[in-house]
Amino acid sequence: MHFVIIGGDAAGMSAASRAKRNKPDITVTVLERTRDVSYSACGMPYNIADPDRDMDDLVVRHAKVFREKQGIDVLTGHYAQAIDPAAKTVSGIDSEGKIFEIPYDRLLIATGASAIIPDVPGIDLPGVMALKSLEDGRKIKTFLETKPVRKVIIIGMGYIALEMCEALRYRNIDVVMVKSRAGFLPWMDEDMAHLVQDEVQSHDVRLCSGHAAERIELYGDRLKAVFSFLTLEADMVLAAVGVKPNSEIAANAGIKTGISHAIDVDRGLRTSDKNIFAAGDCADAFHLVTGRKTWIPLALRANRAGWAVADNVCGGNVELDGIAGTAVFKVFDLEVARSGLSNAEASAAGFDPVSVTIKTNSRAHAHPGATDIWVQMTGDKKSGRLIGAQMVGREGAAHRINAVAVARRLIGAQMVGREGAAHRINAVAVALHARMSVEQFAQTDLAYAPPFGPVWDPLLTAANQLLKKL
Amino acid sequence: MHFVIIGGDAAGMSAASRAKRNKPDITVTVLERTRDVSYSACGMPYNIADPDRDMDDLVVRHAKVFREKQGIDVLTGHYAQAIDPAAKTVSGIDSEGKIFEIPYDRLLIATGASAIIPDVPGIDLPGVMALKSLEDGRKIKTFLETKPVRKVIIIGMGYIALEMCEALRYRNIDVVMVKSRAGFLPWMDEDMAHLVQDEVQSHDVRLCSGHAAERIELYGDRLKAVFSFLTLEADMVLAAVGVKPNSEIAANAGIKTGISHAIDVDRGLRTSDKNIFAAGDCADAFHLVTGRKTWIPLALRANRAGWAVADNVCGGNVELDGIAGTAVFKVFDLEVARSGLSNAEASAAGFDPVSVTIKTNSRAHAHPGATDIWVQMTGDKKSGRLIGAQMVGREGAAHRINAVAVARRLIGAQMVGREGAAHRINAVAVALHARMSVEQFAQTDLAYAPPFGPVWDPLLTAANQLLKKL
Repeated sequence: MHFVIIGGDAAGMSAASRAKRNKPDITVTVLERTRDVSYSACGMPYNIADPDRDMDDLVVRHAKVFREKQGIDVLTGHYAQAIDPAAKTVSGIDSEGKIFEIPYDRLLIATGASAIIPDVPGIDLPGVMALKSLEDGRKIKTFLETKPVRKVIIIGMGYIALEMCEALRYRNIDVVMVKSRAGFLPWMDEDMAHLVQDEVQSHDVRLCSGHAAERIELYGDRLKAVFSFLTLEADMVLAAVGVKPNSEIAANAGIKTGISHAIDVDRGLRTSDKNIFAAGDCADAFHLVTGRKTWIPLALRANRAGWAVADNVCGGNVELDGIAGTAVFKVFDLEVARSGLSNAEASAAGFDPVSVTIKTNSRAHAHPGATDIWVQMTGDKKSGRLIGAQMVGREGAAHRINAVAVARRLIGAQMVGREGAAHRINAVAVALHARMSVEQFAQTDLAYAPPFGPVWDPLLTAANQLLKKL
Repeated sequence: MHFVIIGGDAAGMSAASRAKRNKPDITVTVLERTRDVSYSACGMPYNIADPDRDMDDLVVRHAKVFREKQGIDVLTGHYAQAIDPAAKTVSGIDSEGKIFEIPYDRLLIATGASAIIPDVPGIDLPGVMALKSLEDGRKIKTFLETKPVRKVIIIGMGYIALEMCEALRYRNIDVVMVKSRAGFLPWMDEDMAHLVQDEVQSHDVRLCSGHAAERIELYGDRLKAVFSFLTLEADMVLAAVGVKPNSEIAANAGIKTGISHAIDVDRGLRTSDKNIFAAGDCADAFHLVTGRKTWIPLALRANRAGWAVADNVCGGNVELDGIAGTAVFKVFDLEVARSGLSNAEASAAGFDPVSVTIKTNSRAHAHPGATDIWVQMTGDKKSGRLIGAQMVGREGAAHRINAVAVARRLIGAQMVGREGAAHRINAVAVALHARMSVEQFAQTDLAYAPPFGPVWDPLLTAANQLLKKL
C-alpha cells in the first residue's frame, strides 16, 4: 500500500506519523512544496516579537527525523501540481526544476490555506509582506532586522493582524491597521468588541475602518499605501486580510469543492473520489451546532483530521463529530475567546437566538487581583439549546500590580495571573458537543476557589441570566 | 406564607434573596447564630495572609442590607436549637439569652458544616485554633497580630490545611503539618501527589504523616503538641482535619440523615418532612457519575441549592442534576484541580476504571513561559465513559521570569501568567454532566493559541492516551 500525502504540515504529518504507527509496513510519501515540515505556524507572531529568538525554534520535528526515525519518505521542495484520479498519480516539479510523477493507492490532500493577497498594484513591491508559511515568517523577521522599520501598515483586523500588531508594538514599531469594511471584530457583541478596540488603541495603534486598498507605491526608501480617502506612509506593509483554502489542485482533478471553495469531505474525510482524502485547512467540516458544512481553519482540527485519515487509510472507519468553531487569541493584555455561533450566525442558520452579555469578576469577592470578565452567551428560544459564547477577560493583572508586588513581594505573588477567559471557553465547547440546553449548562458543577474565580463562575452567571430570557 | 431559614450563609441567604425576588409578598425570616451573614468563607486564608486587609472585607452583603433593601427579616445572634415538625415551629436562644419560638409554613435547614475538632486533652487551650466561621478567621488574625507567632503546627493536610499553610508562610511563619494517616493527598495519583508534596516542602514546610494527635499542653509561653512518636513545640496549633455536617438539629427532630450524617434530601432538596428543606454543607447530594448519594461540601452547590429551595417553596419544581465533585485549589505556585471520581472511588462505585497520567506543556511548542502540566484521566473499561480527571499545573511562570521581565520588559510581558489547570478542569466537569464517553471527549473542539496551550490541549492528550487503554 502506497499512501501519498500532498502537504507536510499539521494534517499531512499527523496522518503520515499515525499511518506508520498503525501499520509499520505501509509506504508513506509526503510531498512538501517548501523546505519546512511540522512547525508551529500560530507561534510565528510571538517569535517575530522577540529579536533574540530564532524562527527555526518553531520547527517541531525536522524532515530528517521523520525520514530516519519514522521511515516516512518526506520529499521537501516538491511542488505537486496535478492529480490524475484515473491513473492514480500525482505529478509536479521539484526545487531543481525536475518533473516528478508518483503513483498512489490512497492520496491525502493536505495543502492547507494561503494568505489572501489583495489584488492591487504594488502588492509585489519589496517590503510588502504576508504571513502564512515559515518562509514568510523568516522573510518578515529578516526585513525587521536589516531595515530601519519604524512604522508598519497592517491591512486587515482579524486574529493574525491583531497578533502581528502586538508583535510589532513589542518591538516598538508604530502600527496603523486599515480594513475595507466598517466595524471591528464584527462577529462579536458590540460592547465586547469595543473593549478589544480600546485595548488596541491604548497601545498607540491607529485603527482605520472603511478604507479599501487601492495601490501601493515606492516613496523614497519607504512605501506609500493609497486607500479610499486615506493615504499612509510606512516602512513595511503587511497584508493580513484572511486566508483561502488551497483547493485548486483538487478542483482541477474534478474533486468536489464546496463552501468557501474548500474541498468537500464527509465525516471520514473522504472526498468525492474514493481513493482521495482531504484534511486540514484545505478541507471543510461539519459545524456541530448547525449540522451544516462550514470552513473554519483550525490547527487542532487539522491534526485530528490527519489522524482520522490515517486510521481510515489503514482500514478503520473513524467519523469526526465536527467543530464548534472554538477560538482564542491574545490582544495585548486581553484574552478573547469564542465557541459556537455568534448571534448573527445563529439567525442565519435558522435558530431563534437570544443572548445576554454580563460583566463579572474574574476572582472571588474581595480577592486581590480580580479584574472584569465579560461573557456573551447565546441560546435558542425554540429549543433552549446552548448555541455559543464569547468571552473577553483582562490578562495583565500581573503587569498592573507589579509596583505592589515589588513593595510587598509575598502578598503580591498571589495576585499574579491571567484571568482565564482562554481556558473557560473550553467548558462551552464541551457543552456544545453534548448538545446541552442552557438549563443543563447552568447546572454544571464548575470549579471554585477564590484565586480563580467567583463562586458562580462567569459562565454560570451568563447561563443563569440567559435562562431568564429563554 | 412564612418561610423560615436556619443559617445565614451561602445556601440560606441565596434562598432568602431568591424567595423575595420570586414572590415579594412572602415573609422570610433568617435565624443566624453568629453576627455574620453572606461572607466568602473560602477567601479567609488569603485574607489571613495579608496583615493589611480587614477580615470584614470578606462580607459580601451585610445583614442590614438584606433587611433594609430586600425586606428579609435577618435575625443574627439567634441560635436555633430545636425544630418541632408537628407544631411547625423552631425554637432557640438569642445572644441576650432570651428564648425564642418562631412558627413556619416552610423551613430551610442551612446550618452548614463545622470544623472537626480532635478530641484530645488541651484542644481548648488558648492558641489552639480552627477555621470555619468568619469569627474563627478574626480570632486567628488577631492572634497572629498580637502574639509573637514564629511557628505554627497544622493538624491535617487537606485543602484548608494547605491554604492556611501557604497563608502562614506568606507571613514568614514556620509551619509543620502533621496528620494521623500515612500518605499525602491520598485521592490523587501518586506521582502527582508527590509534585504537590515537593512544592510544599520546597517552601520550607515540614510534613509529618502517620502521627496521631495525643494531647496539647502549655509549655511556658508556647504550646507543646504530643503526637504518636512525635512531640513539637509551637506558638499556635491549627486543627484542620476536616469538616462535618451540622445535622443534629434535623436528626433530633426525626428528619432522616444519611451518608456522612448529612441530611438526606431528594433532587428538589426536600427532606423526609414535607415542609422542611435542607441545602448547603449540612445536606447530601447525588453524585452525577455514580448516581448515588455523596457528601462533598461545595460553595457553588450551596448557592445553587439555596436557589432551588426558594423556587420550590414558591411553587416551582426544580430538580438538581447532582455534583461532579469539581474542586480546585492553589498550593504556592501550583494549581491542583479535580472533577469526577478518583481511581479508588471509581472501583468502590463498581466501575472498572483505567487511567493514564500524562505530562505535557502548558503552552505551544517553543512558546516562552511554557511549564509542565500533568493530567490524570480515568475512564470506565466497560462503558467507555469518562469518569474523572485530576490536574496539576505550575502557576508561577510569572515569578520565575521576573528577572527576565525586568531586563526585557516587553517580551517578558508575554510570559506572565498562570497555567490554567484551574479553568481547564471545567471542560471535564461539563463532559461528566453530559455523561460523555472518553471517545466523545477526545473529539471536543477545544481552544488553541500559543500563549494558552499546545494544539492538543493537555486534556485531549490525556483522553487520546486513555482511549488506547479502554
